[in-house]
Amino acid sequence: MPGLPAGHLLTMAKEKLVKSITSMEEDFAKWYTDVVIKAELIDYSSVKGCMIIRPYGYAIWENIQHIMDGMFKEAGHENVYMPLFIPESLLQKEKDHVEGFAPEVAWVTHGGNEELEERLCVRPTSETLFCDHFKNIVHSYRDLPKLYNQWCSVVRWEKTTRPFLRSREFLWQEGHTLHATAQEAKEETIRMLNIYARFAEEVLAMPVVKGQKTEKERFAGAEATYTIEALMHDGKALQSGTSHYFGDGFAKAFDIEYTDKDNVKIHPFQTSWGTTTRLIGAVIMTHGDDSGLVLPPAIAPIQAVLIPIASHKEGVMEKAAEVFTRLKAVCRAKMDDSDQSPGWKFAEYEMKGVPLRIELGPKDIEQNSCVVVRRDNGEKTVVSLDELETAIPALLTAVRDGLYNKALARRAAMTYDAHNLDEMKDIADHKPGFIRAMWCGDRACEDRLKETAGVTSRCVPFEQETIGDTCVCCGKKAVSMLYWGKAY
Amino acid sequence: MPGLPAGHLLTMAKEKLVKSITSMEEDFAKWYTDVVIKAELIDYSSVKGCMIIRPYGYAIWENIQHIMDGMFKEAGHENVYMPLFIPESLLQKEKDHVEGFAPEVAWVTHGGNEELEERLCVRPTSETLFCDHFKNIVHSYRDLPKLYNQWCSVVRWEKTTRPFLRSREFLWQEGHTLHATAQEAKEETIRMLNIYARFAEEVLAMPVVKGQKTEKERFAGAEATYTIEALMHDGKALQSGTSHYFGDGFAKAFDIEYTDKDNVKIHPFQTSWGTTTRLIGAVIMTHGDDSGLVLPPAIAPIQAVLIPIASHKEGVMEKAAEVFTRLKAVCRAKMDDSDQSPGWKFAEYEMKGVPLRIELGPKDIEQNSCVVVRRDNGEKTVVSLDELETAIPALLTAVRDGLYNKALARRAAMTYDAHNLDEMKDIADHKPGFIRAMWCGDRACEDRLKETAGVTSRCVPFEQETIGDTCVCCGKKAVSMLYWGKAY
Repeated sequence: MPGLPAGHLLTMAKEKLVKSITSMEEDFAKWYTDVVIKAELIDYSSVKGCMIIRPYGYAIWENIQHIMDGMFKEAGHENVYMPLFIPESLLQKEKDHVEGFAPEVAWVTHGGNEELEERLCVRPTSETLFCDHFKNIVHSYRDLPKLYNQWCSVVRWEKTTRPFLRSREFLWQEGHTLHATAQEAKEETIRMLNIYARFAEEVLAMPVVKGQKTEKERFAGAEATYTIEALMHDGKALQSGTSHYFGDGFAKAFDIEYTDKDNVKIHPFQTSWGTTTRLIGAVIMTHGDDSGLVLPPAIAPIQAVLIPIASHKEGVMEKAAEVFTRLKAVCRAKMDDSDQSPGWKFAEYEMKGVPLRIELGPKDIEQNSCVVVRRDNGEKTVVSLDELETAIPALLTAVRDGLYNKALARRAAMTYDAHNLDEMKDIADHKPGFIRAMWCGDRACEDRLKETAGVTSRCVPFEQETIGDTCVCCGKKAVSMLYWGKAY
Repeated sequence: MPGLPAGHLLTMAKEKLVKSITSMEEDFAKWYTDVVIKAELIDYSSVKGCMIIRPYGYAIWENIQHIMDGMFKEAGHENVYMPLFIPESLLQKEKDHVEGFAPEVAWVTHGGNEELEERLCVRPTSETLFCDHFKNIVHSYRDLPKLYNQWCSVVRWEKTTRPFLRSREFLWQEGHTLHATAQEAKEETIRMLNIYARFAEEVLAMPVVKGQKTEKERFAGAEATYTIEALMHDGKALQSGTSHYFGDGFAKAFDIEYTDKDNVKIHPFQTSWGTTTRLIGAVIMTHGDDSGLVLPPAIAPIQAVLIPIASHKEGVMEKAAEVFTRLKAVCRAKMDDSDQSPGWKFAEYEMKGVPLRIELGPKDIEQNSCVVVRRDNGEKTVVSLDELETAIPALLTAVRDGLYNKALARRAAMTYDAHNLDEMKDIADHKPGFIRAMWCGDRACEDRLKETAGVTSRCVPFEQETIGDTCVCCGKKAVSMLYWGKAY
């Protein structure tokens, strides 16, 4: 469209792309689906309930894996690989565990043309396999602790599925540890929850509430389940990582024993902990906006995209090539010198959530500078090319901090206290977010709150604050303050 | 045992461990199994035909993955993740492919308590899933090429299994690429074979023969299959990586089309290529010896182990700590200051194939040096502590080169030429190794050689050398020289 001013073209190109995303306010679920598709994170597959993770989505997962795996190894954990299948008899060894998982597993009944003697389930989680292995390799106190983790995919036959949030197959890590004493295992459970919380807050720039699940929400077979809970843009909670303490229940069910220093045989104590590709969904719904994805720099496949402006003009591409080389030395950088218009490119990398956009045109070059635009708040900074190597990392840190603070402020604004059932219902109906309320510790009240207010207990937060004396539901004496909410 | 000289204790400790491995000569298969168990690479599981990869084995796989993934990315490939399951109807779309794989897949028939409407197979390989996805995302020449790879596990219902070499589930990478022209796809097929060969030779120190598979040995659905073939210690061949050219057969079966620059619709051309945890088996059987595993430095979880000698003596542990810190800066190092005897430790790290053992005792410290022992040839070098940072990396390179040259010399000594059927049978019966022989190109001769001499064609090597005019089997005019052998 010659004749139109560049600014106008830019706006049109941007509008064209942005129009194709539903706004958050209009339909949050549709917005979410639009983002995962348009940012090319996933594609639907012919396998019902399973997703294809595309290169851009998988690169995010690789960054998550890389950083988290480093934290695990730093804490002394080793990676292993257990079989994909669990024989039915093995799954059944721990009674509570099988009750929790059997209704949602996929069963292999035939190998080649032959029917199997015993059905195999595709692992929904691997406690039973780890126990079976621990029994073989743990005999003495010298063999403890075992601090294991595995990265793999698991299968749970969900009825309703959504990309990253709930799918029949998903990628995850599952840590499984075995300890000589209950005390040590309990400490490990909390230590790993703290690592998850640190990862969520520092790496994903996502504030989380750390706490313990109620008995009702506990993992099948666990004595205690701990969780980190994040609050999404739409006010729904998202359980983002869990850590379980098993006591010696599994060890007894699987006959795992070790001989201590006094030659006494003892059942060791166990933990497991996991996070999944769900974290990508959490990032989308925590930081995303109506222009698309917004990625925390630490996990962004592209941290800064360099866009040459008026690249046909003399000297622009030469300078851009030089700047690009320097950028690559300090961050994950990409240069887009394709023949698309700058406006199209701006919209494209906004959609993909690239933390920094760097514009470099003839005027910038004349002034020995470039324009850096932050994805999180649209702020433009003129950066002297002499300071590129310090300014870019500093801006990436600023984006992470900006994202975290914005999410923290939103969570604060969307957290409400309820003192009685009417208040609880009113907040649940009209104010999306976390609801803090006192609880008597009785499961009946939990069930009733779900029925009447449509909320579930998220966790008993470690940071307790007494906001009343009586249970929000039954009015009896309260024992602790809980976070409640609607959840993914 | 006080009173016995240190040297004697050492020998006893070593003998005790070494005794527990069968010697290669006595029983190669038993030696192999002993090594994978005693070096703690794997454990057997309750899931028939599936193995548990233990931390030390998995760390080797992680190193393989890390280096190979870097080579793929350097070559422009992107990682993705496809579903674990393939609906039966999708697997059946390409006729040759389903015939090749259907007899050996595991079938999921139930999800939770319900029978599925359509059976799902657990992926034995993912061509069909990639095609299904390509159909959705490839429309224009601008969408090509697609250079994809995925790291995952696959399942093939094998009757006889052996750790790493053949198991019902194994870990692998599968590359899948789609190109505008046949020429470009053919080049990609060869390019990736060359990357595999470079990886095998440079990283694993394992010489390979590059060549093309005969039609009989071709991958199900491929127009051409290329392979790298390595020779194991016992004279058996091991196919260590394959690269397939599919033409547009899959694209036609799956209706994948793109519009070219002239607006003509064309079926694109495809490749796939894979390597697996089998490579770990290849490393064991190429470099291992009667003391256990011998690892090429690039994939060794521990590249150098520091063993303090007489560590109770004054100054030893202080100096060892200092040396250990310096070692960690130049390689993957471990210090073993446990209360086991030095002899026990020597045997332990020999069993685990650690490339360099570094001994540091009071006398060494007095002379400002340490003793470095190479695992590949037992050679001892006195290294001045002033030169640690240059000497250790140089010795690691020397170990890699030593391993490669030894394996190359062995392969040369175990490669025989056969000029007629009698020679072929004689070599096959009495001389384990590769057999080079001319071939007429007729499958009947391949079948007959398998029946009469028990050998299969390994490949038509790229480096052809005419060693006769007539087919080793039928005596008719030969068209090419082939490598034959018994194979894993």
